[in-house]
Parts: sequence; C-alpha cells; structure tokens
Amino acid sequence: MKEEKVDLTRIIQKKFSRLSKGQKLIAQYIINEYDKAAFMTASKLGNKVGVSESTVVRFANALGYDGYPQLQKELQELVKTKLTTVQRLEMSKDYKDGGTVLKKVLKADMDNIRHMIDELDDKLFQSVIDKILEADRVYIVGLRSSSTLAEYLGFYLNLVLDNVRVVRLGVSDVFEQILRVKEGDLVIGISFPRYSKITLNALNYTKEQGATIVGLTDSKVSPITEIADYTLTARSNMASFVDSLVAPLSLINALIVALGMKERDKISTTFNKLENIWKKQNVYDNKDGSSL
Amino acid sequence: MKEEKVDLTRIIQKKFSRLSKGQKLIAQYIINEYDKAAFMTASKLGNKVGVSESTVVRFANALGYDGYPQLQKELQELVKTKLTTVQRLEMSKDYKDGGTVLKKVLKADMDNIRHMIDELDDKLFQSVIDKILEADRVYIVGLRSSSTLAEYLGFYLNLVLDNVRVVRLGVSDVFEQILRVKEGDLVIGISFPRYSKITLNALNYTKEQGATIVGLTDSKVSPITEIADYTLTARSNMASFVDSLVAPLSLINALIVALGMKERDKISTTFNKLENIWKKQNVYDNKDGSSL
Amino acid sequence: MKEEKVDLTRIIQKKFSRLSKGQKLIAQYIINEYDKAAFMTASKLGNKVGVSESTVVRFANALGYDGYPQLQKELQELVKTKLTTVQRLEMSKDYKDGGTVLKKVLKADMDNIRHMIDELDDKLFQSVIDKILEADRVYIVGLRSSSTLAEYLGFYLNLVLDNVRVVRLGVSDVFEQILRVKEGDLVIGISFPRYSKITLNALNYTKEQGATIVGLTDSKVSPITEIADYTLTARSNMASFVDSLVAPLSLINALIVALGMKERDKISTTFNKLENIWKKQNVYDNKDGSSL
Amino acid sequence: MKEEKVDLTRIIQKKFSRLSKGQKLIAQYIINEYDKAAFMTASKLGNKVGVSESTVVRFANALGYDGYPQLQKELQELVKTKLTTVQRLEMSKDYKDGGTVLKKVLKADMDNIRHMIDELDDKLFQSVIDKILEADRVYIVGLRSSSTLAEYLGFYLNLVLDNVRVVRLGVSDVFEQILRVKEGDLVIGISFPRYSKITLNALNYTKEQGATIVGLTDSKVSPITEIADYTLTARSNMASFVDSLVAPLSLINALIVALGMKERDKISTTFNKLENIWKKQNVYDNKDGSSL
Repeated sequence: MKEEKVDLTRIIQKKFSRLSKGQKLIAQYIINEYDKAAFMTASKLGNKVGVSESTVVRFANALGYDGYPQLQKELQELVKTKLTTVQRLEMSKDYKDGGTVLKKVLKADMDNIRHMIDELDDKLFQSVIDKILEADRVYIVGLRSSSTLAEYLGFYLNLVLDNVRVVRLGVSDVFEQILRVKEGDLVIGISFPRYSKITLNALNYTKEQGATIVGLTDSKVSPITEIADYTLTARSNMASFVDSLVAPLSLINALIVALGMKERDKISTTFNKLENIWKKQNVYDNKDGSSL
Repeated sequence: MKEEKVDLTRIIQKKFSRLSKGQKLIAQYIINEYDKAAFMTASKLGNKVGVSESTVVRFANALGYDGYPQLQKELQELVKTKLTTVQRLEMSKDYKDGGTVLKKVLKADMDNIRHMIDELDDKLFQSVIDKILEADRVYIVGLRSSSTLAEYLGFYLNLVLDNVRVVRLGVSDVFEQILRVKEGDLVIGISFPRYSKITLNALNYTKEQGATIVGLTDSKVSPITEIADYTLTARSNMASFVDSLVAPLSLINALIVALGMKERDKISTTFNKLENIWKKQNVYDNKDGSSL
Repeated sequence: MKEEKVDLTRIIQKKFSRLSKGQKLIAQYIINEYDKAAFMTASKLGNKVGVSESTVVRFANALGYDGYPQLQKELQELVKTKLTTVQRLEMSKDYKDGGTVLKKVLKADMDNIRHMIDELDDKLFQSVIDKILEADRVYIVGLRSSSTLAEYLGFYLNLVLDNVRVVRLGVSDVFEQILRVKEGDLVIGISFPRYSKITLNALNYTKEQGATIVGLTDSKVSPITEIADYTLTARSNMASFVDSLVAPLSLINALIVALGMKERDKISTTFNKLENIWKKQNVYDNKDGSSL
Repeated sequence: MKEEKVDLTRIIQKKFSRLSKGQKLIAQYIINEYDKAAFMTASKLGNKVGVSESTVVRFANALGYDGYPQLQKELQELVKTKLTTVQRLEMSKDYKDGGTVLKKVLKADMDNIRHMIDELDDKLFQSVIDKILEADRVYIVGLRSSSTLAEYLGFYLNLVLDNVRVVRLGVSDVFEQILRVKEGDLVIGISFPRYSKITLNALNYTKEQGATIVGLTDSKVSPITEIADYTLTARSNMASFVDSLVAPLSLINALIVALGMKERDKISTTFNKLENIWKKQNVYDNKDGSSL
C-alpha cells in the first residue's frame, strides 16, 4: 500500500505539465491536502479548488483512473497506511530553500490548528474533561516523538491531580507500569503516524482490563480510534519527513487549561504551596524550582 | 515588580464598568496582549483597537496614571518580570467553561504562530541554520517544560547530524554534560517564562568557553537575548496558568525541516538504513522501531 | 576507614557518662564537628570548647588513646571519606597499575559488605520492612549517582507494591513530585557522600509534612541520620575518586527480597500476569518484555 | 551456583581430548543445551545424541562424578539462574523471615564478589581498559535492570572521556542511537539473565558495523559471550526473584578506577573545572552540583 502514494505523486508529477489549468489546481490540492481530498466527493473537491465536478473526473482520467472513485480509493488507502520516512522525504522536494521553509512550516502548523477549530466538538471535549476528573487513576501513554507530548501533559496534570502516571520507557517496560490498570481508571493514549505498536498493544491491554481509553491522534482512520472510547483528533500533517505535533500540543493545552479551570481551587492551593517552596528553596539554593 | 500586573489588572477590573466604550476596547486589548501593548506608542495602540490617541491617554488617566508613558512603563516592567503561577491563575477568570476554553486556547496558539509569521526574519533563520551545520558539536539545553522541546529537537537533529547532544537532567548534572564545550561548538538554549536559572547559568558558562549561542525564547526582552549570539523568538502567551509551547514547537519544526532540506542526502541515507533495520527488527521482534 | 568513626562514637557513647563535664563538651564538639576537630591542635580544640589543653589530652586518654595525636589521626582518617573529587584523586596514588586496581576494588567492595554483615541490625531492618508495607504511599528519593539505586529499588518495589513513586529529575522538579506527601506516607531517601543538597531539602520538606523517613546512607554521621526516622547504613568507601555503591546495592537487594517474601502471593500474581503478557507480547512483537 | 557450570565446562574442556568419540558428542550437547540436558534421564540424553545410556554414565565418571545423577544435579543447579520470575519465586521458599534474608542476601553478594576475585583475569581486564582508551567513540548499551549499571558506568566514564554515549530508551529508540557505529568504535554491552533481546540485537548490529564489543555479563555461557570480542563476567546469582547486580557493579567500579588511574591528569583537570563550577554555582544557587 505504502507505494501507492508515491506512485500517485509520481504520476501527477509526470503528467503535470500536460494537465489543464484547472486540473493543475486539483493536483496541487491533492498533494498538499490528500487526507482531506480522500474524503471529498468529486463535486466537493471541485468546489474546494474552484473547478467543475467534471474537471475532477477528467483529472482522474488524465491520471489513468477509470474514474474519480478509483482515485479516491487510492487516496484513502494511503491515508491509512501513511508513508515511510524515506517516501516522505521524496515528497518534500518543494521545500528547497530555508526561507520559504520557515514560512511554509509555520503556515502548515497554523492550518492544522485552524482545521481543528473548524471541526471542534465541544461536547466530546467536555466529556473527556469529565471522565478525566472522575477517574480513579489517570495513565498517560505516548512513545517515540509522542513521548514529548505525554511528558508535557503529565507535567501539568500532576499539578492539577494527584492520581496521574506518565508511562515512560526506562528500567520498567510499558506493561509493568500499566499492569494494575483496572475498571475506573482512565488511560490517555497519544499516538501519531507512524503509530507505535507498543502504544497500541498497551491500550488494548488496558481496555481488556476495563479502563476507559481516551485517544489523542491525527484522524478518524487512526488505529487508535478503534480502541479508544473517546478520540480527540489533531492533524499532524507536514509535507516533509517530520510529523508536526503542533496542533496536538495546542489540543493538550486546551485539556490542561480546561482541567485547571474546573479544579481552580485545587491548583490555586498547589501553586501557593509551590511558590512558597520555591521561595524557600532559593534560601536552600535551588532557585530553579521557580520556573515551570 | 511581579505585583504591578496584578495591580494593573485589578485597577482595570475595578474601573472597567466606568470606562467609556472606547476605553473598554483598550482595556481588553491590554489584558490579552499586554506584551504587545507594552511596546506601542499611544497612537499605535489607538490604531490597533480603533480609537483615537487621546482616548488612549484619557484611558491612562482613568486608571490613575499621569499619562500613557507611566502606564506603558508599568506594562514593560511586567513583560520583563512575568507573573507567578498564582497571579496568572488569578488572571484567567474568563476561561470558566470548558467549551470556550477549547476554542480560546486553539485561537491563542494560532495567533502566536501568526504573530511569528508576521515577524519572520528569514535572514536570521538562515544564519542559524548555517551556524548549526558548521558547528563542531551541537548541544541542546532546555529544562522544565522546555525539556520537551529540547528532546523533540534533539530527536530529529540526531537523525540529521552525528554531533548533537541533548543536555538532560539525570545522573549527570547540566554542567558535567557541557563541561567540554569549546569554541567551534554551538549551544541551542531553549527557555521560556519563567526562565530557568540553571539554563541561563549553563548558557553563560558555554559562552565563556567561546561557543556560539542560539537562543529560542519568547521575546526580545527575555534574559536569553542578552546571552545569545542569535535569538529566534516565538510567543508562549496564554492568558492562563500554562505557557504555550505551541509556537515554539512550530519554530522548531521549521528548523528541523530546513536542516533536513540542506542535508537531504545524509538523512535519506539515514532513513534508508533505519527502514532496513526496522524491517529486520520486525523479524527480530521489535516492530516499534518502525515509528518516529 | 569509616568504621573508625562509628567505633569512635561508640567509645564516646560508652564512656560518656564517666567523662568530666569539660570532657563531655569536647565529646559533643567532636561528634558534631569531627571534620574541623580533625585538624585542630589539642590547645586549639581546647579553646574552641572552652577547656584546657590538658583536659583535651586527658579526654584522649579516657577514650583509650595514648594521646591526642592518636585520636586526631583517627579523626583525620575518616575525614577522607568526605573529600572533594580532586583531593580524593590525589589520595589514590597507590592505584597505579590496572591489575592491582581490579583486585583492590573488588576487595574493598567485599569488605564494605562484610562490614555491613558484622553490624547487622535485624530488628531495625524488620521495622523498616514493616513501615514500608504499612505506608499509604512510598516515595523513593535519590539523585546524582544515587539515582541509579533509586531506580533499581523502584523497579522492583513497583513489582511488589502499587503505591511506589520514584522521584526523578525531568520535566517536573523534585518538589512538584513530593508536594502532596502527607502523614502516613513513607519516603526512602538514598544519599551518599557528597550528600546532595536537594535530597536533604526534599527529605526535610517531607518530614515537615509528617511522613516517615527511611534513610539509606553511608554512616551514622551522615546528615541523613538527623532527618530520618530509620537509618540503614552501608559503607560507600573506596580510596579513589569514585564512591562505591556496591554495599548499598546489596542492602537494597535485601530490602527487595525481604519485601518479596512478605508479599509472596501478591508478587506471584504480578509475575504470572507479567509472564503471560510477555508471552502474548512475543506474538505482539515485543519480546523484550521478557527480561527484568 | 553458576560457577559449577563454569567448573563443569572447564572440566569438560580439560578432559575433552581424552574423551571417547561418543562421550565427545555428549559433551558438546551439554555445553550447548545444558538446560535441556539437565532434565533428561541418562537414557534420554543418550538417545538425544545417539549413544548408549552406559556411555552417558561413563561420561559422568570420566568427568569425575560418581554417576549421572551427580552430574545431572549440577546441571539442574545452574538452570536455576535462567528461570522465569515465577519459577524462581517458587524456589526461594527458604527466605521466609526477613532477618535471615538480610544476612543471606549480603552473604550471597559477598560470595559473588569473592568468586570474581578467585577468577580474576588481569590480562583480559587490561586489554579491555586499553581498548576503551583507544576507541574513537564508546557506546554503553544496557536495558531493563542493567540500565542502572549502564547509567552508573556512563556517568563516571563521561568524567574521564569525551566520546562516551549511553544508549537509553526515550524519544529515540536504541537503533537510532547506534545507527552510526563504525569500525574503531567500542560498544560495552551490559546484559544479565534474563537477557534482553533488544540488547542482543543491538550488539549484533554494532558488530556487523565493525565495532569492538565488550560484554559485561554473568557467565561464559551467556549469549553475550558469542557476540563479544571481550567478555568480563560477574555473577548475578541470588536464589530469589531478583538478580543481583552487586558483583557486576563492583566490576564496573574497577573499570572506572582503572580508567581513572590511566587518565589521572585528564580527570584531575575535569574535577578541578567541576569543583570551580560547583563553587561558582553555589553563588549561582545550584549547590547540588557539588555532589557526585
């Protein structure tokens, strides 16, 4: 499956010069937003880029597909399978000079957040907040690059709650740390492409134990969604070899702030205690406490 | 100093009801964007919120200041000193219900990135990229919440370069890990409010040793800027008890992608090697290698 | 060398009641300030505590020494174990060739363990085991080189108990992790020369909160002993620039095994669960779970 | 217990040339499959290698045992150290009361060190020291409980050398950290029962890249020995559910001290620098630097 995207992009690149002006618009949109395009009808895609539905169909034909459905099917496949680092590097040719890189990356991240705002589901978000506050114990599981998000979320949640455990690789393996997960506990699983097998296995285990699973992932077709009771999505797209965790981090900020507001008094006490300790530690020679 | 902001916000809250419609606009802008307001002239601030310069002056008087310069001075003081966690919690009253929190936080993060785009300095960014590629050894120093950014940056830089060291607290303290820093080395210091003393001390030490310092921080008035040879800024504002590292993370994405583009062939080799190992490790039973 | 200090303090304690009022002053000063006393002449020591030089000499005799020089020599021996890395390096000249190093180091470690066996206090050890099993929550605090012991102890304790937290430097600082320590909790503080200030500050804080403190340290004159409710000692002597944590690690083994025996059924369940998961994970491709 | 295996293999090696063709087959099978052989009757073992039961008995006699049962008993003893956590827990019934546990554990650890002293191989130890000092880059790989040893060794080696990397699980996986290992580099692999698969895979990879492998493991029959160019052994026996890393830690102390003696001047400089920084940091408010 993994090749399809590359083939598709190759096909597009090969045929690009011979495409009509309107078809070129479709081509560019697909390259940059294939995960959105994958779920649009021909007419919706046409509207998006400002061409007619028939132009979209002719575009599919121009690439050698019997029709738009075939092209769409391929796009969807690939949203599922994601690309290897090498294939993604292949795709990021347009990022040649550093200057435009800076602007392009920032814009891409901004778009990922905007996309999240467009698809806000406050009710879902609220339920997650409530479930976290109701849980006996909260576990946070995120490995590889997602471990930075897990640590960040755990850092702040530990200031708000007393029952949070960040599962991290170290002397203990993941399963030793989640061994006693039980009904009443909640597990926040953070996983972005390419999805860590250990994270998926760990979430499956905790689900078997009866825990509630909250997934933070990149799309509704992520393997996490099949496991999680609640899935919050934030896109990690970046037409380059790096997945962007910017939108996910913003979503995590929202979780932290929302939990903080609900537990305002608790954390107010926590912070007062901490500020005092930090002040005292200055005397004790450990000023560093005074920064988060 | 730390009190001024609270006093100021208190004053504003107390007087708010009696302010004119135009003055209320200024008040709100200052609460949300005090670090921008702090560096605007009365007329610029007026334009920003769509009122006259004289309205700004009368606003200052309404709060009990002799004039706008006094008000501005106070704002600037406070951009320097930042707030304690407790004071910031005080300020985030408007974040009551979770629903709006979600949208507000995402919007604030989007604004922080947009603000960065508005102030892009490609030449500076390019010089940083070049310096990193020229360095004998690259050290990354970031503690507390910034350590998640340091780990993320280090993770990707290690895929591109062979001379990168992430300085992390563990058995060894920070200074043992930077002890041999010398001229020709480059140190990336990541520090956001409230600035870690140890990070500042570490950067000062490495500067004394003759290393080049690149600072990633939140503003031109950050203590990092006085130490760093090159300072890249990304705002971490969030009118709540949490600093947002979203814009900084986006900036780090740009650094990673730009470096990757410059070293395309190197990382292409790296990734090919890794993909093969991961494939082999699947046999060897360690599929998790296959995700970044 | 350090047992000399223990012997010395024992001698003093045994003879204390029969000492003259002036001699008692000397005794107390030596216990508290032996490292200063070690470099004072008899007359200087006399002045310090306000007695005559001859009283100091008679004090030495009363303890069974031919004279003050013998007593002073013993004090100086033991100061060795509290020297700076540089001073200690100076002292280890005799370790020239690697061959003898190997034998000397192993012998020194064996002696440290033997010394521990000679001074076994089973009753104390038992009380510590009981206190750990009674605790609401168990915190383990050890920094710098002692963090390896803390991680090792925490790794096994987590297999036996469900309420263990290893306090480690990372995104969160030490105090954020012990902030909620309360009466009913137990804190195991691991600290060896040169004693980490943060560890001492952390233990003092947890003591103020009403927690029970168990200290693992090198001697009865360690600053830990003044804070801890129970102190288990294991010598870390090594006439070189490195402190040996071998005897302390053996003591920790004993703690783990003793706790395991008391909770045999619990860990038997834990291990059965783990062995099953590991077996299942083999299928899932994560064989590494299968080793401790 | 394990020295029996080593003795046994020695005996076999010594007598091998004088063994009959059939006895040689038994010898080889036992060396390779001792844990299976340990639970075979003489006749079953005979069938396995295609010799008569009486040949098996004569083989036992040839090695100096009264009969096959004695030989078998010895084989079984040694299988103990390769049992699952559950099986080992079953075996440790004799550790009922905590009191004797303390003494038994300390004695077992002392024996493990004494055993190491008895089998000292200074020439081998010296070669390892030399190889470490000659290496372009030194990697230390140890996972699970062995990671505490890896961190401890890395902590001190980093004070002596400037080219040491501890491979630790975190954002980066093991292979990303050893990807660029090459001829001229040296990899110290630390692995004790039950041997981590990832460690073995990592060592195999680095060997393929042409690096020199130094293994720290528990016996000559450890899988590490087949991979390593140099193997230093320290017993980790403890008739309980925990492997003892006490003797291995003592061996690591010896490595550290021996390297320190060879590089006395370098580390003297390092320590002088550190002591100054620590002193300065006291002013800077970070006294904790002053302890190792």
